[in-house]
Amino acid sequence: MSVIDLNSDIGESFGAWRMGDDEAILESVTSANIACGFHAGDPSHMASTARAAAQRGVAIGAHVAYRDLVGFGRRFVDATPTELADDVLYQIGALDALARAAGSKVTYVKPHGALYNTIVHHEAHARAVVDGVRAFNRDLALLLLPGSLALIFAEDAGLRGVSEAFADRGYNPDGTLVSRREPGAVLHDEALVTERMVRLAAEGVLEAVDGTLIRPNAQSICLHGDTEGSVRLAAAVRAGLEGAGVRIESFAA
Amino acid sequence: MSVIDLNSDIGESFGAWRMGDDEAILESVTSANIACGFHAGDPSHMASTARAAAQRGVAIGAHVAYRDLVGFGRRFVDATPTELADDVLYQIGALDALARAAGSKVTYVKPHGALYNTIVHHEAHARAVVDGVRAFNRDLALLLLPGSLALIFAEDAGLRGVSEAFADRGYNPDGTLVSRREPGAVLHDEALVTERMVRLAAEGVLEAVDGTLIRPNAQSICLHGDTEGSVRLAAAVRAGLEGAGVRIESFAA
Amino acid sequence: MSVIDLNSDIGESFGAWRMGDDEAILESVTSANIACGFHAGDPSHMASTARAAAQRGVAIGAHVAYRDLVGFGRRFVDATPTELADDVLYQIGALDALARAAGSKVTYVKPHGALYNTIVHHEAHARAVVDGVRAFNRDLALLLLPGSLALIFAEDAGLRGVSEAFADRGYNPDGTLVSRREPGAVLHDEALVTERMVRLAAEGVLEAVDGTLIRPNAQSICLHGDTEGSVRLAAAVRAGLEGAGVRIESFAA
Amino acid sequence: MSVIDLNSDIGESFGAWRMGDDEAILESVTSANIACGFHAGDPSHMASTARAAAQRGVAIGAHVAYRDLVGFGRRFVDATPTELADDVLYQIGALDALARAAGSKVTYVKPHGALYNTIVHHEAHARAVVDGVRAFNRDLALLLLPGSLALIFAEDAGLRGVSEAFADRGYNPDGTLVSRREPGAVLHDEALVTERMVRLAAEGVLEAVDGTLIRPNAQSICLHGDTEGSVRLAAAVRAGLEGAGVRIESFAA
Repeated sequence: MSVIDLNSDIGESFGAWRMGDDEAILESVTSANIACGFHAGDPSHMASTARAAAQRGVAIGAHVAYRDLVGFGRRFVDATPTELADDVLYQIGALDALARAAGSKVTYVKPHGALYNTIVHHEAHARAVVDGVRAFNRDLALLLLPGSLALIFAEDAGLRGVSEAFADRGYNPDGTLVSRREPGAVLHDEALVTERMVRLAAEGVLEAVDGTLIRPNAQSICLHGDTEGSVRLAAAVRAGLEGAGVRIESFAA
Repeated sequence: MSVIDLNSDIGESFGAWRMGDDEAILESVTSANIACGFHAGDPSHMASTARAAAQRGVAIGAHVAYRDLVGFGRRFVDATPTELADDVLYQIGALDALARAAGSKVTYVKPHGALYNTIVHHEAHARAVVDGVRAFNRDLALLLLPGSLALIFAEDAGLRGVSEAFADRGYNPDGTLVSRREPGAVLHDEALVTERMVRLAAEGVLEAVDGTLIRPNAQSICLHGDTEGSVRLAAAVRAGLEGAGVRIESFAA
Repeated sequence: MSVIDLNSDIGESFGAWRMGDDEAILESVTSANIACGFHAGDPSHMASTARAAAQRGVAIGAHVAYRDLVGFGRRFVDATPTELADDVLYQIGALDALARAAGSKVTYVKPHGALYNTIVHHEAHARAVVDGVRAFNRDLALLLLPGSLALIFAEDAGLRGVSEAFADRGYNPDGTLVSRREPGAVLHDEALVTERMVRLAAEGVLEAVDGTLIRPNAQSICLHGDTEGSVRLAAAVRAGLEGAGVRIESFAA
Repeated sequence: MSVIDLNSDIGESFGAWRMGDDEAILESVTSANIACGFHAGDPSHMASTARAAAQRGVAIGAHVAYRDLVGFGRRFVDATPTELADDVLYQIGALDALARAAGSKVTYVKPHGALYNTIVHHEAHARAVVDGVRAFNRDLALLLLPGSLALIFAEDAGLRGVSEAFADRGYNPDGTLVSRREPGAVLHDEALVTERMVRLAAEGVLEAVDGTLIRPNAQSICLHGDTEGSVRLAAAVRAGLEGAGVRIESFAA
């Protein structure tokens, strides 16, 4: 029987500002990447998000980021490796305390935004993220882009690396994402996306923009909850997977 | 045999800014109140301070504060009880992660600055601090001013409350501190301060400004490390206590 | 002919977080209270908001606040008078630079949230706000709650104080707002609100919850733009006032 | 008669944290680069620093930076050009308000730390800084490293670009600074440094590490005030220049 995890970035509100429909997306996913206060997420939103995830049995991951609220963690910050590793460890510890108070705990880490993209290729930052995660707990998994340098370093360090695919994105034949500046970058058709994800979960293949079949080796599918459409898409993907007999389960369960 | 703890606020550097001689004061104290990032202390300074404390066997306490870097936690912030409890829990969790990576852990909490003073009388904030601490771990102690409302709430909640005396401060006959605007507020004479602290540890009494003997019921003595003179005073107090046969030991050991 | 100003808080987005429909509310008001970065509003949102106001000939006011992003300026912060005056001056200067680049300038100041409410009665903070405003430019007006201590200090300092009424709020017979915990605090009926505002502009009177007629002495009416309903209400009030022959004009024009 | 400006970075304290001896260094320089709150400098420290500069007739420059307090502006932040230009404009406006309240005004801009170094070669950020400065006032000068891309863009934009030399640094024969990892990077000998600066001011030449004579085309000399030694060096350089008949005067006077 096929098994796959569904993850989404949540808890990205901050103070009076709201972002995304966390309650709705939690109905569809098995893993919740919760912001830890450096790009989004104040302690009270982190706490309520952790409670909402715990109540539904959704696994809690630390969505760690560069320290940059105004940039929402979307801008590269040239931190030293020591700063970055300590920033990662600080964020995991803070979220874990709130998750434990909610009856759960942090079971994995997914870097956010610019950090996620940077550690695909930036050796020092990739190592720093792995160091920060390992310093917290060697049982944590790291959720990353397939091919990320950090996956290699994670495994070298004895951590479990997990790769993800993006439900609503087009892929190039080499397995990279189609750039947002090109046609086919973002997919909106619920039936098509669902069919693609069922095939990915069942057979491990995904059709690239040119028709090539690729094998992204994904143990998780990333979904979004920031718009009404994305929440509906997430629910459709989940229903489609379940209808096809795929078991939906956190990789960190 | 008499036993007392010596505590000091440390780890209050932030980024490029330095504050206090942490290495020096760690030679004298048994409990280190480490800033957690809300009034001072970035993750890397927290990490290096935690390592320095762990290496010397000094107990690590979370020096939690209102979220106010520019005000250094010295200004009352009218947070809601929920915000404050979650802020406290967040700070403890973040420091604990860094302390554990250093081979130690957080064993107590001491509120900082305006928060410390506010919860002497502010019921909602006193309860919120206790809630935040308890949510982390019921084994944590709370280090507070004698007479603080938070001491009562801590005990009601099954937490251990610990009171402290201030080595370099004068006391009124009612047990409160002499205001800094009045004579006798701050004591600089090493011999006098040491003699007072030895008597406090051995007999439990302290002489107030008018000669009255008071009983502060202190299980810890607060020392400072921000100036050369205060570091010297701390070393003198420790040497004096040891010379008088007082055992110096963390209340949280 | 009757004249009145219509003002609204805008520019309260921050980084990736959006708040309010600024473009829509700018169609109805004559004065825009733009956030200055301390409770909301990053420089780029301040710049685009200033341009949008300038293009429509809407007067620009500095919506100054306590430094508290996570609390959105809604929490009292016990700043020293010097800190507060300098914070106010800093915020006005920053916004004025962006307003001038947009072909306009800051012509008035409206304190936000907790600061607005605090200076109704807090003498030191009321004086500090007036000091900060006056230090920038003695021609700036100060937009405040009727009865605010800061109005008295503003006039003592030779600044122009301006009072406002709240379109969607009920009033007590003593001129204060009905508490949000009591019935009649918030009015939603567009026709009723419009009729009340027309009467206020034309005759200077407003009916309190118990039917008493009060005279709020308001030269401006505060409208909201954070929900679809409030934007619609604002448009209705403006249309009603214009239909009744009231001239809509900034007090700072 | 030879003329040169002496500049220094000041106002880099923040809240309870102190940095540098601003009062002392202000006795030696003619241009004060005052931090604007993004890497250092809260409004009250900016205000007191501006007053101290104004009292001594020292020109005030905006020491603008990437928004990164914990990194002290020393880390590259991948801001968009719009964000950066607006950040620069915001910082200049804020400082100008405080400078005017002190009876002076901002007459030039010097980018700080990572921003200073980045715009030597980063085209988009160099243009953004120039855009931000120009949007404030076309009469502002820009103080930069010789050879900085931003100098070219400044002149294209009709702004005055000014280059500086570093009193305490060794130079390579190509006019770049000797790397801090190599010998000869930092000069400590007061007599030698003074002699070099007198020659630079009088003849326009500076001896590189290999003995080559280079012509840095500097209209200002950068001095430091962060240590006792640097303050003394600054005073020695000023005395030496005056003794040699060089006029010390702000380029922005």
